[in-house]
Amino acid sequence: MAVPPPACPRHLLPLSLGLFQGALLLFFTFFITYDEPSAQAEDGNLVANQLSGIFPLFQDIQVMLVVGLGLLLTFLPRYGLSVLTHNFLLLNFSTQWALVLQGSLRRFHHGRVRLDLRNLLTAEFAAVTVLISVGAILGRTSPCQLLVVATCEVPVYLASEWAIVTCLGVLDVGGTITIHVFSCYFGLGVSKALFGAARRPVHPKVTATPHSDLLSLVGTLILWVFWPSFVAVLCQPGDAQHRAILNTFLAMSASAVTTVVASSLLERDSKLSPGHLQNGSLAGGVAIGAVADMAVPPVAALALGSLSAVACVLGFKFLTPLLARKLALQDQCGIHNLHGLPGILGGAASAVAILVASEDTAGSRFSQVSPVGGDNDEGARRWWGDRGAGGRALCQAVGLAVAVGGSLLAGLLTGATLRLPCLARPPERLCFDDSLYFKIQDQAETPGPGGTAEEGALALKE
Amino acid sequence: MAVPPPACPRHLLPLSLGLFQGALLLFFTFFITYDEPSAQAEDGNLVANQLSGIFPLFQDIQVMLVVGLGLLLTFLPRYGLSVLTHNFLLLNFSTQWALVLQGSLRRFHHGRVRLDLRNLLTAEFAAVTVLISVGAILGRTSPCQLLVVATCEVPVYLASEWAIVTCLGVLDVGGTITIHVFSCYFGLGVSKALFGAARRPVHPKVTATPHSDLLSLVGTLILWVFWPSFVAVLCQPGDAQHRAILNTFLAMSASAVTTVVASSLLERDSKLSPGHLQNGSLAGGVAIGAVADMAVPPVAALALGSLSAVACVLGFKFLTPLLARKLALQDQCGIHNLHGLPGILGGAASAVAILVASEDTAGSRFSQVSPVGGDNDEGARRWWGDRGAGGRALCQAVGLAVAVGGSLLAGLLTGATLRLPCLARPPERLCFDDSLYFKIQDQAETPGPGGTAEEGALALKE
Amino acid sequence: MAVPPPACPRHLLPLSLGLFQGALLLFFTFFITYDEPSAQAEDGNLVANQLSGIFPLFQDIQVMLVVGLGLLLTFLPRYGLSVLTHNFLLLNFSTQWALVLQGSLRRFHHGRVRLDLRNLLTAEFAAVTVLISVGAILGRTSPCQLLVVATCEVPVYLASEWAIVTCLGVLDVGGTITIHVFSCYFGLGVSKALFGAARRPVHPKVTATPHSDLLSLVGTLILWVFWPSFVAVLCQPGDAQHRAILNTFLAMSASAVTTVVASSLLERDSKLSPGHLQNGSLAGGVAIGAVADMAVPPVAALALGSLSAVACVLGFKFLTPLLARKLALQDQCGIHNLHGLPGILGGAASAVAILVASEDTAGSRFSQVSPVGGDNDEGARRWWGDRGAGGRALCQAVGLAVAVGGSLLAGLLTGATLRLPCLARPPERLCFDDSLYFKIQDQAETPGPGGTAEEGALALKE
Repeated sequence: MAVPPPACPRHLLPLSLGLFQGALLLFFTFFITYDEPSAQAEDGNLVANQLSGIFPLFQDIQVMLVVGLGLLLTFLPRYGLSVLTHNFLLLNFSTQWALVLQGSLRRFHHGRVRLDLRNLLTAEFAAVTVLISVGAILGRTSPCQLLVVATCEVPVYLASEWAIVTCLGVLDVGGTITIHVFSCYFGLGVSKALFGAARRPVHPKVTATPHSDLLSLVGTLILWVFWPSFVAVLCQPGDAQHRAILNTFLAMSASAVTTVVASSLLERDSKLSPGHLQNGSLAGGVAIGAVADMAVPPVAALALGSLSAVACVLGFKFLTPLLARKLALQDQCGIHNLHGLPGILGGAASAVAILVASEDTAGSRFSQVSPVGGDNDEGARRWWGDRGAGGRALCQAVGLAVAVGGSLLAGLLTGATLRLPCLARPPERLCFDDSLYFKIQDQAETPGPGGTAEEGALALKE
Repeated sequence: MAVPPPACPRHLLPLSLGLFQGALLLFFTFFITYDEPSAQAEDGNLVANQLSGIFPLFQDIQVMLVVGLGLLLTFLPRYGLSVLTHNFLLLNFSTQWALVLQGSLRRFHHGRVRLDLRNLLTAEFAAVTVLISVGAILGRTSPCQLLVVATCEVPVYLASEWAIVTCLGVLDVGGTITIHVFSCYFGLGVSKALFGAARRPVHPKVTATPHSDLLSLVGTLILWVFWPSFVAVLCQPGDAQHRAILNTFLAMSASAVTTVVASSLLERDSKLSPGHLQNGSLAGGVAIGAVADMAVPPVAALALGSLSAVACVLGFKFLTPLLARKLALQDQCGIHNLHGLPGILGGAASAVAILVASEDTAGSRFSQVSPVGGDNDEGARRWWGDRGAGGRALCQAVGLAVAVGGSLLAGLLTGATLRLPCLARPPERLCFDDSLYFKIQDQAETPGPGGTAEEGALALKE
Repeated sequence: MAVPPPACPRHLLPLSLGLFQGALLLFFTFFITYDEPSAQAEDGNLVANQLSGIFPLFQDIQVMLVVGLGLLLTFLPRYGLSVLTHNFLLLNFSTQWALVLQGSLRRFHHGRVRLDLRNLLTAEFAAVTVLISVGAILGRTSPCQLLVVATCEVPVYLASEWAIVTCLGVLDVGGTITIHVFSCYFGLGVSKALFGAARRPVHPKVTATPHSDLLSLVGTLILWVFWPSFVAVLCQPGDAQHRAILNTFLAMSASAVTTVVASSLLERDSKLSPGHLQNGSLAGGVAIGAVADMAVPPVAALALGSLSAVACVLGFKFLTPLLARKLALQDQCGIHNLHGLPGILGGAASAVAILVASEDTAGSRFSQVSPVGGDNDEGARRWWGDRGAGGRALCQAVGLAVAVGGSLLAGLLTGATLRLPCLARPPERLCFDDSLYFKIQDQAETPGPGGTAEEGALALKE
């Protein structure tokens, strides 16, 4: 059965991507260089030490984004190739696009830009927001539309991150507010503006099979294992990083156990829902980001992990159906439950943590590195020279509000753009199906007990 | 087809787990803190260096336990979601439980307990014993029963580890005796006491498919790759760690090749048995643990790896059926072949290695760090001040005997506990099936050539 | 249906492998030791630091070779167990064989050989060439034949590597020329000599299913993530290594995006071909190896990545069918497109990079460590004392020519050996099928909607 080309002019994707690659080459030619090699042996040793401190964590994060997140999305049984590929393409495109935007900004300030592993990491963090946001609209959108989302979201993220971290001095080493909350509400905004008020029935191809659930769970487990690297990679090396790793581990461990408790209590016959497990186990990691390197006691990490897992499971069970019914809001992968609710919990927790922390140790407690550069200390000092713990806690809350409001607005605008006629959506009948985007053998679509007819024919030939 | 709830009261699991999480929070509130941040910059550098030495290995071990071990168990084709989930849940529960027990002991001795990455690692090692032991009873037990096993096994492990490493001064950096032998005989004891003398036919759902074998083999490969990290993580950094990594690599490489040889020779038509390959390739890693950081020559690692692979394959081919026939002993995953036989070989090899090592270099040869704390050196010195190589070798043998005997006894008692009426086993008909524990779509159970009926219906609507 | 044993005497494999293991033990007994433990604490610290610099990268490479490459080859839907196993076996056998050959050579020069992690790495690099080469003949060859390929290829690789890196002073830190180009043409030579002039129709079992394509894509993604570790592991720690990591990342990112562009433009309806994606995304990593640690600007890495992805996709679309038609050349996995074309591009790029680099900075630019030992600096100095940039660029070109010519010749000879009657190929009808090499349950071959008959029988029994 030949699948007809969708309404969207299909050459749009390769042509625009190709143009972008050309522009990227031009931009890199003129504006991006590497650091000069260190002149002295001692500096060389320092570089080597820093590299062996950060590179393993960088690789862990790459595994999370490319393999773990990709597999997590393969719960759609007939759409696995597409989600893996779209995730991979969006990660690369968005990282390149973030490098260009970051480079342009820095060039404006400092002249020629030097690329290093830390720049790459912050560019990848920008890309993460895109990967999360598109979870809301997965399966019913074309790759062109996903690229438009990436194109719009990366600059908005960079602006929002600058406002929240650099201007407001919000502490958020693991990206709870700047990445998770931001990308969740951006994605929901896009979904709302794109799909409008029409309520859609559940698409038959969305139903997970035990096998697709298994692969998706493997993705969850990969994300679960490497999450401490994601939270700790930009921490100050030493104690703060050690604490961030331990806090993240504790939060995720509590999430895993609590998810089983919550899901069993909510489902009939105390059975587990695979979807709860796939998402709830990670909720603690989302929430802990904002407080991971603060001097909170270990029990706080455990409690936050448990709470966010409960929030996530309750969200899947009650809030998502409610939002779908009342607001006709589509959230295909449940990003509001995994990134929105736990993110807001984490943001609130960071404000509480600052309020609770006694004043005398505040100086050493809140030294951290911003997720997007070195300006945070300066920004923080600028504000905090004259602010008490109350002011700082307020800043966290304001930062959270900015992330929610700004991203929702920008998401709605982006979603409206996606309705442009040249970006037509795939027809409903062909959604959630790999054969729309991949050249798949017809034979492959009916995997039978094992082509005995072919074998016979072949045997005859011999 | 609706699956009826099993006899075991299903709310038992979430309620008891929930209670445990609450108790855990209370315990952490009062007893567990983090280290104070280092006051001086130099100490901070030291912490950062130690962290970049141990954290990548910690992550490797996490991948092994969460992803590798989980996938290895997915050879049961219709039980994949359950084994992944039970493995994940047990790992987290047992680690938390071990943290509580360790914390209580330390608190008793030293007051408030400081949590660091090394504590977490030793707690995870306690959890590993649970993950191995339940391999004997997998599929025919409920999650409640598995949690009872974990609850009983972790304290017994901590006591046995204290007796073997701290009191007897046994050298066992990779946990060959303390982890693998211990958990194997504990698991066999549980299985014997739980299933009694009834011989069961092979359950039809136990038969692996090529696809489930493939996933399981991927799990083996992940374990195989990261095993050197498991063995070397608690070694003295530097030469001993380097040697442990190389020895483990050589042993596992020899295991991999020898398994192919042994399996081909034993099976009809020289075909390979997937089960042999999945287990035999790892046997060398189990056996090498006790001697990995000793100054044995490389050839000893190769020989030990080959021998243990042969033992593992022979065990699968002859010993497991024999034990099932004569003793009605059930060993679902063959843990006796992968952990028992190679573990005993490794324990014996460590005694021989000590005997063979010449006296003059013994001092430098046997300095090591205990897998569960810093007391080993002291214990070792206390004993070895007045013992020759013969005495030390004897200690290894006694340690091995303690591990076998103690764990078997404790396992039998635990298994008897599992027969309590409130922990009723799932009915035989529903064993090895995900649908007993997971909310799975009915449609998912009959994946056909591709719901054309649904597509047609959908197409008509449009 | 019982599969008859193939013509090849099946005991040949276990017997020859067993003999090899015995010989390996003997060789290690007499010739291989470990380093003496460092006498001084300071040296111990140095060892620990070096270890924490190289070990995480070593593990990354292990994951690539064992898991990533194995999964990449599972695109053959009924041959997954076999490709994973053969890949695993060949890796271990070839590494052991390379250790023996390297050891013999060193022993001849320096007496007793000391094994360390760096030796292991260079032995694994020799094994990589085998894993790549057999991609050309996969599925239609017996394990015996694959072992013969490994036996022949490893010594030829060591000789070729010595000629290219040590004698000619070719710069190739990532193995573009010495590993990828070499192994590609070796594999094509073997294929040509083995299969002769007979043109074979596409075997029906070769057609990928969406599921096998998905697993294969996961393999690609794992390789993609860890490729920077492969290229950078033997670089000088510090700036050169940092640059190699960044260059590799940029090249692979450009490859990923460009592959999507190229594949969309070439296929009907702008659909993507899974095969293009699985291979093209990695082309940049192959090509960048020869220039990764040179002081090229970032844009060069991007451009090289894009170009090689285009070359790879064009190769799959046009060159492979052409070679099959005109030369009857079989290239099952398309190694010519992934390793040959991008490798030649990378080799040419390294010559151009040397020509373009200005003379004055050349000294610092081209210091590197040879992939196979420490002799390169000496060799380089010997030649380059009296050679300008032109001479050096010429050396790169000559090295490329040596790699292509030498490997093609050696491959043809090896392929001729494979036609020996005692190594008979599996019959065409049974190719690409796991049941030829694995003991697979018959029931497993017809996975139906879920053995209700069995369940019923079981239920009756109870």
